[in-house]
Amino acid sequence: MKRYGYICLWFLFFFGYSSAMGAADQWGTGSLMIIVERENSSVVVVDSLKHEILGRISDLGVLHHASISFSQDARYAYIISRDGWLSKLDLLTLERVAKVKVGDSSIGLTVTQDNRYIAVSNYKPAVVKIIDAETFEDVAAIPVEREVNGETVPSRVVGMVDAPGNLLVFSLMDADGIWVVDAGSSDFPVIKKYWDIGKMPYDALLTPDGRYYIAGLYHSRHLAMLDLWELDKTKEIDLNNPNKKTAKMAVRKVPHLGGWSMAGGLFFAPVVAEARLPVYRSGSFELIKSISLAGMPMFAMASPDGRHVWVNFSGQNHRLVQVIDVATLEVVKTFDIGDRVFNMEFSPKGAYVYISSYKDNKVVVIAANKLQIIKKFDVNTPSGIFSTIRAHISGL
Amino acid sequence: MKRYGYICLWFLFFFGYSSAMGAADQWGTGSLMIIVERENSSVVVVDSLKHEILGRISDLGVLHHASISFSQDARYAYIISRDGWLSKLDLLTLERVAKVKVGDSSIGLTVTQDNRYIAVSNYKPAVVKIIDAETFEDVAAIPVEREVNGETVPSRVVGMVDAPGNLLVFSLMDADGIWVVDAGSSDFPVIKKYWDIGKMPYDALLTPDGRYYIAGLYHSRHLAMLDLWELDKTKEIDLNNPNKKTAKMAVRKVPHLGGWSMAGGLFFAPVVAEARLPVYRSGSFELIKSISLAGMPMFAMASPDGRHVWVNFSGQNHRLVQVIDVATLEVVKTFDIGDRVFNMEFSPKGAYVYISSYKDNKVVVIAANKLQIIKKFDVNTPSGIFSTIRAHISGL
Repeated sequence: MKRYGYICLWFLFFFGYSSAMGAADQWGTGSLMIIVERENSSVVVVDSLKHEILGRISDLGVLHHASISFSQDARYAYIISRDGWLSKLDLLTLERVAKVKVGDSSIGLTVTQDNRYIAVSNYKPAVVKIIDAETFEDVAAIPVEREVNGETVPSRVVGMVDAPGNLLVFSLMDADGIWVVDAGSSDFPVIKKYWDIGKMPYDALLTPDGRYYIAGLYHSRHLAMLDLWELDKTKEIDLNNPNKKTAKMAVRKVPHLGGWSMAGGLFFAPVVAEARLPVYRSGSFELIKSISLAGMPMFAMASPDGRHVWVNFSGQNHRLVQVIDVATLEVVKTFDIGDRVFNMEFSPKGAYVYISSYKDNKVVVIAANKLQIIKKFDVNTPSGIFSTIRAHISGL
Repeated sequence: MKRYGYICLWFLFFFGYSSAMGAADQWGTGSLMIIVERENSSVVVVDSLKHEILGRISDLGVLHHASISFSQDARYAYIISRDGWLSKLDLLTLERVAKVKVGDSSIGLTVTQDNRYIAVSNYKPAVVKIIDAETFEDVAAIPVEREVNGETVPSRVVGMVDAPGNLLVFSLMDADGIWVVDAGSSDFPVIKKYWDIGKMPYDALLTPDGRYYIAGLYHSRHLAMLDLWELDKTKEIDLNNPNKKTAKMAVRKVPHLGGWSMAGGLFFAPVVAEARLPVYRSGSFELIKSISLAGMPMFAMASPDGRHVWVNFSGQNHRLVQVIDVATLEVVKTFDIGDRVFNMEFSPKGAYVYISSYKDNKVVVIAANKLQIIKKFDVNTPSGIFSTIRAHISGL
């Protein structure tokens, strides 16, 4: 009897304890930061209000260029690895709750507007995979290819975004195309195919209002823009006629269009291989200014209040982050963050900026209003940083 | 022994069961809808992905004109009752975890950009109360008053918003003023006082970029606008020179400025007591069109994709909601929702619209892309609907 009693008490203690711990360990999912540990096949989940690491989720595949999207309730993070593993991470329990192989070489993903599916863009095989967000079943594979001289040419897929109207939009890197899929129809039809939009799209963005899809082109001097309200034809935007052109520098990295910004009616677009940031008027794309910088911009990210644009660099001065005042278009602050600054992300309402220093195994937190570093913490080879505020933004 | 064993098993079953239930009952907090049950002193919490009621939290005071703001992680909803009770609702456990009396007659609230404080605007007493969001301690009371002919005149406070730079901005209804408080300083100093901005501000909004604070004036023909980047002086915006003026109708309700909208570079502003919606160009405030409607607009809310503006009415045709296409500025759909439509709110990325029919004790859910009613559910005297997406938007 005594023995059973003890066991019973032990169980009670154990369950009571877990239960109490459970209560203490609960968190809302609205302001979490998921930081990719690039060489560690893992992510850490951070509370961006307290700047504390809540935990780590491991064994996620090859995370070079890994990308993350969120369910709309911000409960789940979906991460796609470079080697084609799509994982579903529960941000309440910090466990992987599902995984599926979606390709041999994958590059991006998005969650549909209705929150029901995940669309993955592959380099290989040349398909867009549609996965049921709840069951993680493979529900469709859209072949991405073009007929050229009677031959079928498969294409790598880039610039995958979800868009209002429950659409998916993506670009065909090897076929100079932009396609639009209706994710509200059970067979996921490609409802529009735009061809010869320019040479070799390499990335794309959706404007914050969800209306314009803009693709960057590796071998053309313009950008291709599609108005999703019209779904008519793509327009060319020429960003290559700046007043003050500086000498070209060797290309280290193609600027990601995800790091382009709009703020204060202006459009900030890094150009490939130059140590400056051209500023255009939104809409007309008239060049306003070309801001000289410490290096070749990799990302140029507007703060949520549009007050500043934060820039990091590839190649020369990769330790630095420069902050541009949108009102004056001048650099107002230069931070030495650490070896190889990779990514930046804002906390909700822009109070803090998280910046990853890949080689220093460090994430630096800056109070955005005061432009002051307030904390540094250890993260293993940090690269991409993804705030759960993305759960509510079309195109992310 | 046997008996202890049974008890032990029972406990095990009980804890195992609760634990399992706990897991099943978890949810992310990113896409919840909190619906005020106006005459029932309660709110219901709804999963806006499944359109299911998760639970009810009661005993919240007099909820006429009740307002809700959220912690940035969307874990907590802060609700202010008309009779001055501020409650903290845990959206993971659906329990009230704190309450404090902050006034005799309260009207609005906001959470500061740094997520540390709740600022409550009172009618009576004439103070802004600052409450610690974590401890719920009363940390400051800012007297709101003006010296007039040597006498101190207290003022009701309206249009309370949080703004970038960790600021609080609000208007003085009985003193024709706008004040700015630095919520980043421990003594919450009023750093700017603007006087004679126009006669009797009654409500205000912060533009979505967090830059402009615009106050509506009951007894002036203009609006007062403050540029928070400059913090210089207020400007007058005149919205009262429309091309097509219709006959005035009796005022039933003053349009809330929170229901004004910007979309597609346009500004939609209901005017008091007229059955039309004037549309202005953003920035210049030039009148583009005056759209004839079924009644006097109460709220005119742009969908998150800026594609449509949804309008409900006070007085005549209070059962209806009309949808305006922003591209054509024409009414494209009219819904008969139910008796006394009070409020509308979008789910994340705008896939669904929730609309409260106060007198019918019903909330109607519409698929925004297809403009189709997909569900109705029972809610006791529903009025305000607050999505947790507000947790990340300055000014809400």
